[in-house]
Amino acid sequence: MPKLILCRHGQSEWNAQNLFTGWADVALSEQGYNEARISGEKLLKQQIEIDVVYTSLLTRAIETTYLLLKHSHQLWIPVYKSWRLNERHYGGLQGKNKDEAREEFGEEQVHIWRRSYDTRPPEADEKLRETYLNDRRYAMLDRRIMPVSESLKDTLDRVIPFWIDHISTSLLNHQTTLVSAHGNSLRALIKYLEDIPDDEISELEIKTGAPLIYELDESLKVIEKYYL
Amino acid sequence: MPKLILCRHGQSEWNAQNLFTGWADVALSEQGYNEARISGEKLLKQQIEIDVVYTSLLTRAIETTYLLLKHSHQLWIPVYKSWRLNERHYGGLQGKNKDEAREEFGEEQVHIWRRSYDTRPPEADEKLRETYLNDRRYAMLDRRIMPVSESLKDTLDRVIPFWIDHISTSLLNHQTTLVSAHGNSLRALIKYLEDIPDDEISELEIKTGAPLIYELDESLKVIEKYYL
Repeated sequence: MPKLILCRHGQSEWNAQNLFTGWADVALSEQGYNEARISGEKLLKQQIEIDVVYTSLLTRAIETTYLLLKHSHQLWIPVYKSWRLNERHYGGLQGKNKDEAREEFGEEQVHIWRRSYDTRPPEADEKLRETYLNDRRYAMLDRRIMPVSESLKDTLDRVIPFWIDHISTSLLNHQTTLVSAHGNSLRALIKYLEDIPDDEISELEIKTGAPLIYELDESLKVIEKYYL
Repeated sequence: MPKLILCRHGQSEWNAQNLFTGWADVALSEQGYNEARISGEKLLKQQIEIDVVYTSLLTRAIETTYLLLKHSHQLWIPVYKSWRLNERHYGGLQGKNKDEAREEFGEEQVHIWRRSYDTRPPEADEKLRETYLNDRRYAMLDRRIMPVSESLKDTLDRVIPFWIDHISTSLLNHQTTLVSAHGNSLRALIKYLEDIPDDEISELEIKTGAPLIYELDESLKVIEKYYL
């Protein structure tokens, strides 16, 4: 039976400062490095053999991937990186402190932006758009689909094609597959995988730096899930 | 003009102990980590933008790759790993201390094994062969071509197909290409690239952890080479 392992990156420097992060490319915090290292050691101890890894284009997910593989002695495993697994683009909220955003926009509005399924946060301003348009890592991305802010639904709409073309293909080839990504790109994937209704998905919390293992049947139905 | 960057991994734990390493999968030493980090910082300072990376299946080359990309803020670059870029397989010498090998086999014999172009060292014993036959990372490798010891010529014979199919293709697509590998797999590549005679190539020394930059013309002829 194929095994799917989802891992949200360890705590980042901006998580630690309570800032909206999204596509901002921040590194892991000291705690984040430790979370990923400890999870790597657990993978080794439980002899979980990974065959392929998919991750985002963001540093904190790639650092987490590296530490998981290094400490489980599997650095040689192929790792594929795609913008489709990036965190949800938080538009104009990126870089803002969450408490300050609540003061500026009101508790309820911020709650809606964070937890509604299909409401987009304010769009990125000109300067932030330019940043991503000039970022070499997105140079191959059709300018018309460069996001300027995303709802969870928007994130799901770009994650699922990657599931269909890559992740599920690996699983159907009986490969133990690690997806090392972000709170919202994983939430989108789990919504699809477990068929969770729109109004329930946003309440789903995923632990940072802790591999979440899905045992699947031959048709990729979930048999069981548990944290490593 | 395409740029080719070759980087031999930083000092490994076994380099530090003066042991023959070959396919033995040892980690970088503290000095090795520092070499790679400093080179990554230099890549950043000189704004060298890499488009694609090729590396081996061995931990010390992958760790070097990671540190080069991390410290040059380019972790999102695609990295492809292949056994074809592995270090020369040192057969029965692997794990032996170089001074002890000289005492056991004589100074001249060890010199020939290390520096002749087409002499193979003693073959790996049964136990070492089993190790690699059971190593998951080589499971996709035709059993008939699993090496039991390699001359530099043998190494070249497996490196060049990878040059032709992947590295040179990237360069011809105008991609700045990093090859993060080992003393002898890089020596083989340089022999081919610079058309160095059999009796001269073994004297070529490559610095550890220091990117060696080749400026090439449109037909991949070497215009200039220098360490970063």
